[in-house]
Amino acid sequence: MSIQKQSVGELLAGYAQVLAELRRRRVVRTNNAPAGDYAEWLVARALGGTLAEDNSVKSHDLTLPTGERLQVKARVISEPPKRGQLQTSAFRSWDFELSALVLLRDTDYCVVRAALVPVEIVREQSRFAAHTNAHSVHMNSRLMGHARAVDITAQLRAAAEG
Amino acid sequence: MSIQKQSVGELLAGYAQVLAELRRRRVVRTNNAPAGDYAEWLVARALGGTLAEDNSVKSHDLTLPTGERLQVKARVISEPPKRGQLQTSAFRSWDFELSALVLLRDTDYCVVRAALVPVEIVREQSRFAAHTNAHSVHMNSRLMGHARAVDITAQLRAAAEG
Repeated sequence: MSIQKQSVGELLAGYAQVLAELRRRRVVRTNNAPAGDYAEWLVARALGGTLAEDNSVKSHDLTLPTGERLQVKARVISEPPKRGQLQTSAFRSWDFELSALVLLRDTDYCVVRAALVPVEIVREQSRFAAHTNAHSVHMNSRLMGHARAVDITAQLRAAAEG
Repeated sequence: MSIQKQSVGELLAGYAQVLAELRRRRVVRTNNAPAGDYAEWLVARALGGTLAEDNSVKSHDLTLPTGERLQVKARVISEPPKRGQLQTSAFRSWDFELSALVLLRDTDYCVVRAALVPVEIVREQSRFAAHTNAHSVHMNSRLMGHARAVDITAQLRAAAEG
């Protein structure tokens, strides 16, 4: 049935079914919005990394075959992005080597842009907010297009096909 | 196409389309997981309330025709609920008269149980967590089945059909 003809209850049931299927395939691991888990899954698939065991208490999300530890930050954005949409969630530790920054398009969760950025560059451009007692950074071109950043958009898009 | 045959990218695109349709119908108002917005929408529809204008800085979510202010708390739960799933998000103020507590089933977002509970009962059963500097409460039978609670499960289920 087309989406427009479904009742609100039917739409939500479809939403729940998609999330259940994503959990079954181990793409997402929680009942939360899937952007974060999905981005981790894409990066792991694209770069051959291993997801960290404990999803809640850790400084990194996955480890690359090279041994480098990776923190993944994802946001769902409009095109063009609205004010504030590029800001990452809180960094509560810098105990990792690389940050994978992933922007997903709100209409279809396609990868808009993704980059690997060394922790020191992220840290340098981050700001501290006393309110949340944590740092965050804007995933803008200055950060994602930094000379030491590596673009991984194409790899992540390919990983999404699987 | 059946969900099992879709690629991960297709599943996420379907997920985004459902969210976009829910936003178009004004059931949800953000890109966040829809449970909270959906519960507010159900309660407003079922009880004839008016949603508060500003979705972020407010002590209540909607106002009933009687003038009573209502704070809505929702959680998505398994059946039976897993440890911790019944706990509400933070109450950062008690500046409302009634709390609408809504439990949604993870497989299809059907209303498992919903109740209107006076703020003083919620406050009495709540606990303070220094870590988050906020109170929360467990939406268990002791709270939702309290002598002064009003069950609104049937009304919310009827509202979901629309």
